[in-house]
Amino acid sequence: MKFADRMEKIEPFYVMALLGRAKQLESEGVDVIHLEVGEPDFPSPSRVVKAGMEAMASGLTHYTPATGLPLLKNKIADFYLQRYGVQLDPYRVIVTPGSSGGLQALIALLVNPGENVLLTDPGYPCNRNFVTMYGGIVKSVAVSAKDQFQFSADTIRANWDNNTRAVLMASPSNPTGTVVSDEALIAIANTVASLEGTLIVDEIYHGLTYDQSLSTVLQYSDEAFAINSFSKYFGMTGWRIGWVIAPEVAVPGLEKLCQNMFLAPPTVAQYGAIAALEPEALVELEERRVEFKRRRDYLEPALRSIGFIIPASSEGAFYIYADISAFAADSYQFCIDLLEKTGVAITPGIDFGTINAKRYVRFAYTTSVPRLQDAVSRIEGFIATL
Amino acid sequence: MKFADRMEKIEPFYVMALLGRAKQLESEGVDVIHLEVGEPDFPSPSRVVKAGMEAMASGLTHYTPATGLPLLKNKIADFYLQRYGVQLDPYRVIVTPGSSGGLQALIALLVNPGENVLLTDPGYPCNRNFVTMYGGIVKSVAVSAKDQFQFSADTIRANWDNNTRAVLMASPSNPTGTVVSDEALIAIANTVASLEGTLIVDEIYHGLTYDQSLSTVLQYSDEAFAINSFSKYFGMTGWRIGWVIAPEVAVPGLEKLCQNMFLAPPTVAQYGAIAALEPEALVELEERRVEFKRRRDYLEPALRSIGFIIPASSEGAFYIYADISAFAADSYQFCIDLLEKTGVAITPGIDFGTINAKRYVRFAYTTSVPRLQDAVSRIEGFIATL
Repeated sequence: MKFADRMEKIEPFYVMALLGRAKQLESEGVDVIHLEVGEPDFPSPSRVVKAGMEAMASGLTHYTPATGLPLLKNKIADFYLQRYGVQLDPYRVIVTPGSSGGLQALIALLVNPGENVLLTDPGYPCNRNFVTMYGGIVKSVAVSAKDQFQFSADTIRANWDNNTRAVLMASPSNPTGTVVSDEALIAIANTVASLEGTLIVDEIYHGLTYDQSLSTVLQYSDEAFAINSFSKYFGMTGWRIGWVIAPEVAVPGLEKLCQNMFLAPPTVAQYGAIAALEPEALVELEERRVEFKRRRDYLEPALRSIGFIIPASSEGAFYIYADISAFAADSYQFCIDLLEKTGVAITPGIDFGTINAKRYVRFAYTTSVPRLQDAVSRIEGFIATL
Repeated sequence: MKFADRMEKIEPFYVMALLGRAKQLESEGVDVIHLEVGEPDFPSPSRVVKAGMEAMASGLTHYTPATGLPLLKNKIADFYLQRYGVQLDPYRVIVTPGSSGGLQALIALLVNPGENVLLTDPGYPCNRNFVTMYGGIVKSVAVSAKDQFQFSADTIRANWDNNTRAVLMASPSNPTGTVVSDEALIAIANTVASLEGTLIVDEIYHGLTYDQSLSTVLQYSDEAFAINSFSKYFGMTGWRIGWVIAPEVAVPGLEKLCQNMFLAPPTVAQYGAIAALEPEALVELEERRVEFKRRRDYLEPALRSIGFIIPASSEGAFYIYADISAFAADSYQFCIDLLEKTGVAITPGIDFGTINAKRYVRFAYTTSVPRLQDAVSRIEGFIATL
């Protein structure tokens, strides 16, 4: 059977092979500590679960409008007013099946075959593949600790060419947990606008920051797209629900795409999401944020103390991006060996790009402090054998 | 803002404008009879709702594997054995967010830019747009009542060219409710194989047939892809859950695509789907099938008796495709006038293709017989005024 050429350019998640091996080890009785999973370990907030169950019990399991329930759109618009002071027409809210759905719809909306999109390396791997799937060209830009592993207006200008259509960036970033300052974000928005391109900011880890609260790009631009999700901060990964805030002019096109691609986002998840935006759920989520901070405050110095180099501190999400070049030449092999010898699972840099990928690994602090302590002690023992 | 060229080729659903107007009329107190909606009016089976609620209460709201829970894959494979006598390796089961997800993944997997896909006109509108989105060429083939508005081996051979990559067909068909006979399906599978193309059969309305039970293409081919869904027969539209049965060689590629495009299908929907395949739910679904048959048995002769020409009887799904050229020159205008004057909403042919689209409308018998009777009497009155 003949497959499309694009398939050769789409890489699998390397961590899946590790996960498969981790499961096998677990089935053999090994106690695996999972620091590879980009998913909160908490259950969904109790109010959210209750709302989802009520929706189901009430028979609310039919299709909704393609871009989401009007009530959910209103609640999301309210949320922007409360959290960021941004007044938003609910018409601009496009509810999607996870941010995955939103990211694909935006690439389909904006990028012609042969046009390129600037992406950070390291960065979220699916973004490269979405651009490739629609015939676009991925222009991976090496970002470094000097810029918090984020774009700056300068790097964007330096990498822009006649075929550049858009910049897609994430703050906080996966895999580095770093954020873009307001000053840098404003400069980036202005630069992309002056280059007549489109700025897409993935804000799915907003709410999960530990030293500051972040601005949304919507505070500084009416032309940018903001992508968000109920998965991470709101603890609703398996519900598959997210959203895009689009410039008004882009809404009809996105509506057409959502009608075709999704028919509608999952209905019960939308009712859960409405509850997630209520004050009671937000209180529960704030407690979890504090717990993530506690973990970060433990894990980052602990890793440093056993020899990991962390060139940019984790300011958000639940990720630490660490340089292992002092221990090994290839971080993928390092991850495999670490899992085999200690039962600690982490993600190799190669899942997030190619530039310097062999030097780095990603730690997800999505497990409790005692488990993190256990992991650090196992890792310390492992390193001593290298 | 500049949008990608593909956006000009993607048509909105024309019925959405009608739906918008229908909602407005309802808000003004008009009793609208909805015969435009491609969605069962029944709630999800009680066992399914119960299983979904239990999953939620148990905290099963995290990500699952990208192509679905192993238990669900096993259950789907069992279902093929029970219903069709087909022995299936569960490895070949790819669980997707609705059949929408599966259809997109298959086009991404198979079709290069510039290659074409044979589609029936009339047919499901999103399929045209999925091909377009990935740079493929839609080759719409006029199908007629002589062939039950379905492909035949002859029409496929006549329309095949050097750039044809695949045939995508649906049995039962949306919008015609017609099915492909076993004999025709075998001939089609053999023809596509001999042309070294790929056959994709959308079987999402399987289970909803009224005069016969259908074979799956998997009984006749190991190289074809079968697409299915829990939306229609299983009554789970808003849950957004479907599946693809793929040839073994295609599974690794589909896994890569699903990891990127969806991360995973909605978790609670997967637990609901497991319950939908249990004998108790299947009993409930069989009762509904009988009810759909009752509606078809009423509506089709009733429409004929008031002057509609139905060139191919509805054998499955819940659709009747009717020729209105005796009443009006443009079926879209006919639908608008019908809605305005009588409150009966139906779907214009233009949503399903361009060839002869102005002659046809689609009726969905997704409402009770008394409501259908009311609709027929209103339509009869309307026709008398033309």
